[in-house]
Amino acid sequence: MITYERKAFYHETDQMGVIHHSNYFRWLEEARVYFLDKLGLSYKHMEEIGIISPVVSIAAEYKKPVKFDDVVIIYIRIAKYTGIKLELEYEIRDRSTNDLMVKAESKHCFIKNNSVISLKREYPSFDKIFHEYVINQDK
Amino acid sequence: MITYERKAFYHETDQMGVIHHSNYFRWLEEARVYFLDKLGLSYKHMEEIGIISPVVSIAAEYKKPVKFDDVVIIYIRIAKYTGIKLELEYEIRDRSTNDLMVKAESKHCFIKNNSVISLKREYPSFDKIFHEYVINQDK
Amino acid sequence: MITYERKAFYHETDQMGVIHHSNYFRWLEEARVYFLDKLGLSYKHMEEIGIISPVVSIAAEYKKPVKFDDVVIIYIRIAKYTGIKLELEYEIRDRSTNDLMVKAESKHCFIKNNSVISLKREYPSFDKIFHEYVINQDK
Amino acid sequence: MITYERKAFYHETDQMGVIHHSNYFRWLEEARVYFLDKLGLSYKHMEEIGIISPVVSIAAEYKKPVKFDDVVIIYIRIAKYTGIKLELEYEIRDRSTNDLMVKAESKHCFIKNNSVISLKREYPSFDKIFHEYVINQDK
Repeated sequence: MITYERKAFYHETDQMGVIHHSNYFRWLEEARVYFLDKLGLSYKHMEEIGIISPVVSIAAEYKKPVKFDDVVIIYIRIAKYTGIKLELEYEIRDRSTNDLMVKAESKHCFIKNNSVISLKREYPSFDKIFHEYVINQDK
Repeated sequence: MITYERKAFYHETDQMGVIHHSNYFRWLEEARVYFLDKLGLSYKHMEEIGIISPVVSIAAEYKKPVKFDDVVIIYIRIAKYTGIKLELEYEIRDRSTNDLMVKAESKHCFIKNNSVISLKREYPSFDKIFHEYVINQDK
Repeated sequence: MITYERKAFYHETDQMGVIHHSNYFRWLEEARVYFLDKLGLSYKHMEEIGIISPVVSIAAEYKKPVKFDDVVIIYIRIAKYTGIKLELEYEIRDRSTNDLMVKAESKHCFIKNNSVISLKREYPSFDKIFHEYVINQDK
Repeated sequence: MITYERKAFYHETDQMGVIHHSNYFRWLEEARVYFLDKLGLSYKHMEEIGIISPVVSIAAEYKKPVKFDDVVIIYIRIAKYTGIKLELEYEIRDRSTNDLMVKAESKHCFIKNNSVISLKREYPSFDKIFHEYVINQDK
């Protein structure tokens, strides 16, 4: 399983003394970029060839607050991949205690020239990477 | 209905040329603080007397991207209020076109001295405000 | 004098219980965009015709911390305008006490097609607006 | 010399296609926290014993824009340490080209119970760490 490690920064806290809830969505994005990189699908490269992958929807449940200087591990999993849509699931866990801090999911599509595209049809090599990962991710 | 108006700032854009998806959660928080203020429940005052109201869960569906300098109106509605839990629904609409840009919901509890409290039992005057608003909000 | 009013948002605080020092630079940008708008130089329009105006340098002195829900007024002044370079000065003052919270300055150039341009030569109508404002701003 | 390495995140870009200028101040803070940690002065610990070290002033010159996914190295140096005031200098350099992207400096004091304190008098062990580092940093 691909995991992304991240330290909580001071500038990410708010006056409740914990990480502001909006920042976890930024961590998930970092984890996503890292995940795609590990799959061999650089998001930077995708944008360079004109593909963007916006967030269609996103949701999070906050279990425990992460604090400044804590280190978390983000576990990321493909929940669904159809060739057109990509759904991801995440767990943000404290590195030392393994406590589940945040549970989240996001849905994405792929857009080129302002239209939703099918990776399956237009980028079969990318499509293959996703399919193979899905088959193997829970082994 | 209580609405919150907001201009999209340059520093909230990302290199996709639109507002970064994480920033809408910050706008919702601003709308929430404004909403509570209008109800007569200053969040600043609540924190001063030791009550915090963290986000338990939050979710958003992104319909259309908001761009720099666009003005949106955020419509906020209490979906559920139990005396212990508060659930809110939001619509972020473009001020000029009325287009729905983002649909969202958030759940909150109230915490004092690190424990979840019942506003109903411990702050009946706050509880009354929520109840009366709920009864009248859709009239 | 053109002034920009701004409420301090909850998500802009950090665990020191005050606005995080990096956020003031975002407020200055908002004030700048507002200022250009008032001058009749929409920054959105400038970017649409291919001109960007990046920050060349920026500096701030923090006098007093701004807190959540406080309202500040940002006073902005052109310190220098050469047709090529633009230097701005700012004061962030508490709206109720008039206390000086932050003093700042920023330097900007104008770029088109990856090259620094002279507004004086290439956009004389924009240049005229800056010159006339400079002459009159301290009257 | 103590250096801090950092990847530029997608959510840190703006619609100019580069890292938003305000974000570099957040990177400097991360570098500062890391630097203090390496010196044996955990900022988290300092806050736990009631010392905060706010930014008194900060300034940056932007030489070249950092882009998404670029990796930078932040070089940090004590420019001055008096027992009461701490002045730091930074260079943000591209890891692959060694190009200077941003040059910056920040001034800090130490506060306990709302008053500026002298580390020299009140925390001689911390004071010693700073002094010894200053003597050796350029060797």
